[in-house]
Amino acid sequence: MEDCLFCKIIKGDIPSYTIYEDDIVKVFLDISPVTDGHCMVVPKKHTENITTIDYDTLTHTEKVSKEIYEMMKEKLGIDGLTRIQNNGYGQEIKHYHLHLIPRYNGDGVLFNHANKLKPEEVFEKLK
Amino acid sequence: MEDCLFCKIIKGDIPSYTIYEDDIVKVFLDISPVTDGHCMVVPKKHTENITTIDYDTLTHTEKVSKEIYEMMKEKLGIDGLTRIQNNGYGQEIKHYHLHLIPRYNGDGVLFNHANKLKPEEVFEKLK
Repeated sequence: MEDCLFCKIIKGDIPSYTIYEDDIVKVFLDISPVTDGHCMVVPKKHTENITTIDYDTLTHTEKVSKEIYEMMKEKLGIDGLTRIQNNGYGQEIKHYHLHLIPRYNGDGVLFNHANKLKPEEVFEKLK
Repeated sequence: MEDCLFCKIIKGDIPSYTIYEDDIVKVFLDISPVTDGHCMVVPKKHTENITTIDYDTLTHTEKVSKEIYEMMKEKLGIDGLTRIQNNGYGQEIKHYHLHLIPRYNGDGVLFNHANKLKPEEVFEKLK
């Protein structure tokens, strides 16, 4: 897509710190990293999110994320990997991407909690 | 596995707010929700994380998460879905699970940043 930032990065029109690339995906570092080594697995074919991506591509992004995890254990000595994928509100770039956030013992990475209801109250609504 | 909390929930030995179930996965609400409707897609067969799960099971968890997203749009009026999967450090229960965190416009859900290096410094290490 012409106006998509990630399509431009994939084409090479915008530079990136690319750490892996094949026919289906490109993996590059996030410029606003949550932890050291934070990168994104991005399918080359433009697709918006989990509701539009095909499962072959999706499975490939999962396989690549596993390889990156192993590579980062070796090269960065990471202790874990938090994988995040946003859809709709919370997704800044509307091109499917899987965040890989390396975890380090005691890194203190946390989500703030913003819930208002108790699980039993939500459960009632979902029945 | 005998001592696994999620295996006990799957067997029904520990109660849960189960919102979906089939032969391969069970989906139940997180008891410490980040937002209202926060649940987890959990494969019934015990497997620890991304390095051990088989891809058929993994693809199924992805498909189910897409269905839950659509269901929650309708029943909870959610504006987005943040999907998180932890491995190693950061993963409390050592049984593969995919967090589905519903997003609501302006919910303020954020990660704190804990990086120490610049992307170009990490890139050097990964070369």
